[in-house]
Order: sequence, then structure tokens, then C-alpha cells
Amino acid sequence: MKKIEHLGIAVKDLEASNRLFEKLFGTPHYKMEEVASEGVKTSFFLAGPNKIELLEATTPDSPIAKFIEKKGEGIHHIAFEVDDIKAEIARLQKEGFVVLNEEPKRGADNKWVAFLHPKTTNGVLIELCQERV
Amino acid sequence: MKKIEHLGIAVKDLEASNRLFEKLFGTPHYKMEEVASEGVKTSFFLAGPNKIELLEATTPDSPIAKFIEKKGEGIHHIAFEVDDIKAEIARLQKEGFVVLNEEPKRGADNKWVAFLHPKTTNGVLIELCQERV
Repeated sequence: MKKIEHLGIAVKDLEASNRLFEKLFGTPHYKMEEVASEGVKTSFFLAGPNKIELLEATTPDSPIAKFIEKKGEGIHHIAFEVDDIKAEIARLQKEGFVVLNEEPKRGADNKWVAFLHPKTTNGVLIELCQERV
Repeated sequence: MKKIEHLGIAVKDLEASNRLFEKLFGTPHYKMEEVASEGVKTSFFLAGPNKIELLEATTPDSPIAKFIEKKGEGIHHIAFEVDDIKAEIARLQKEGFVVLNEEPKRGADNKWVAFLHPKTTNGVLIELCQERV
């Protein structure tokens, strides 16, 4: 794991949370992006080498809508940058982790992504991501 | 906010979670530390410029014990490194955030720390931290 690429935070109202996190960081978000396949609208903030991704559900059956219904707003997942996502998926499966996406899928921010099931990672939803080239 | 200094994860059994995260990262934790005033034992892993801090409660009234009772194991807080924690506390209070520690307190890993109340930060428990010199 090269670094925390980003931390994903589930929010109810992206515009309101953009204003809140702008006050927190002292700088505005630098981009917004919709990932229709995941049913989310996202915005990104920079904190040095790391990003904060705010996620708002765009459909009632979006994973973010379900998360907020169950747990309320808050930290949804943590994403680690890796060099070779396919090799990392194979390594982690061998170690006994449950990988939700055997084949990496296209995520926000020009990335290949795969998630680990939180039941095998102390309740933490972990995303692996690799820059798409 | 200079970077994500660390991400704090609440765990029930630090030894078991150390083994789990060692498999996840492919490297062992590099230190353990008890913070008696907070009722926690901690261990630290590196992910490039960032750290992962696992936290186990050492007393039944530890904030970590209460967190796990209410929400289960998982991500507990996110810590941002700042250059001047007192100036940052003053700035954030002025912006309307509720700072739980008006005076920074001593945290793990040789840091001055202060927390923001999650009710003013979209449900996210945020820690500010500055290296103690």
C-alpha cells in the first residue's frame, strides 16, 4: 500500500458539505464527478498527498444511501493506492481477505478500483486503487 | 491541513488485529504505545506518508469501548497534521466548528492533539495533530 489515496465520506447534501469542508480545509473542492454506475455524485478536496472524497447518493439503492440509512453520515471507506491492483487482489485473496471485485472496475477520479469486504478487515471498507493509464 | 497524519481504527483485540493488518499491508506494525489518560493501547502501521493507528480500549469507559459498543469495530477518527495547532483551533472555532479541546492535549506518537465534535463535521470525528518539539 503506497499511501492513503483518499478517504470517502458519505454525506446527505453534497453542496452543503462542500461548504462545510471548504471551511474546514480553508480551500474549496477542486473537482466534482458523477459515477452513474455507483449511484453517486462526488467532490474532492486535497490535503497534501491525500484526498478527501465526499459522496452523495443519486439513487435510493445507491450503496451510499444504504450506508447513511444504517449508520448516518460519516466515514464510508478508505482507499489505498497500489502499483498493481491485479497482483494485490491475488495476494490479498491468498491471505484470506474477501475481495468484492475480482476484476477491478472503473471508479471515480480515473482509477481502477476493487473493494475488500469489511467483515474480513475489522469492519473497515477498504478500496484498492490504481491510476488508469 | 498538511496531510492525513493517521487514520484511527477501533478494534476489540489489538493482537488479532495486528496480525490481520500485517497481512493486509504485507509488513508488521512498527510500534505500540499505551495512552493511559485515554484508556487505549495503540499500534501503528505505515502506508507511505500516512499511518494507520489501531486502538484497543483498556478500560470499560474508554471512548473506544463506547464506540465499539455503539457502532462496532471500524474507522474511529481521521487525524490531520497541522503546523500550528493553536492557530488552527482558533481558525476553526471562528468558522463555527466545535473544538472539544480548546487547549491541545498530549496524544499518542509524541503529538499535541485536539478533536472536533463530529456533529459539526458531517459525523466525522476529526483530530488535529502537531508534532511535539
